[in-house]
Amino acid sequence: MRLLPHPATEDIELTEVLRALADPVRLEIVARLSVAGEMTCTDAGDDLGVHKSTASHHYRTLREAGVIVSKQAGRLVYIRLRRDDLDTRFPGLLDSVLSAAHAAPAAAARA
Amino acid sequence: MRLLPHPATEDIELTEVLRALADPVRLEIVARLSVAGEMTCTDAGDDLGVHKSTASHHYRTLREAGVIVSKQAGRLVYIRLRRDDLDTRFPGLLDSVLSAAHAAPAAAARA
Repeated sequence: MRLLPHPATEDIELTEVLRALADPVRLEIVARLSVAGEMTCTDAGDDLGVHKSTASHHYRTLREAGVIVSKQAGRLVYIRLRRDDLDTRFPGLLDSVLSAAHAAPAAAARA
Repeated sequence: MRLLPHPATEDIELTEVLRALADPVRLEIVARLSVAGEMTCTDAGDDLGVHKSTASHHYRTLREAGVIVSKQAGRLVYIRLRRDDLDTRFPGLLDSVLSAAHAAPAAAARA
């Protein structure tokens, strides 16, 4: 099991998290992870309507911003939200974004 | 008093709001407005360390995303947060972002 590079909790930057969440596809991935817990990238990206390489770019953006943890195990990559880290760093932020995304799905998620 | 174009409350998109907030300078402008209420662009942009044209671009981004209202009165432009509209559309979001920005100022605001 290989852990890819991630920012430490105290190095997670608010603007980077907001930027990572400011995309309909990434927001949908985060919403799925909030329900499912851990998923493989393959499952998380299912039916997103984006190419595999685009999905990989989104996972990387989310990981580098500190929103998700990615662990590689053989050919599979498992991802999950860094919910505790985000709640520690920015209390209430993830919940309010997830509630907002649920109440008013972005254009890409509605399509 | 001239009101520049703004999205209607129901047309404010979560991803656009997150994108508008995902910048240290714009986050600082929003934090100032949250304290001051209404400000002229000149006052809001004071000491931000960006050129006037860059500040104008930031105000426009915030306005088009539905984060602020801009009103032109002669040579002055007054701006304020659309706090009620944002709270209606995405409950808790603005407060959690402002708290997070206050607790962990972005790199630009620390400089």
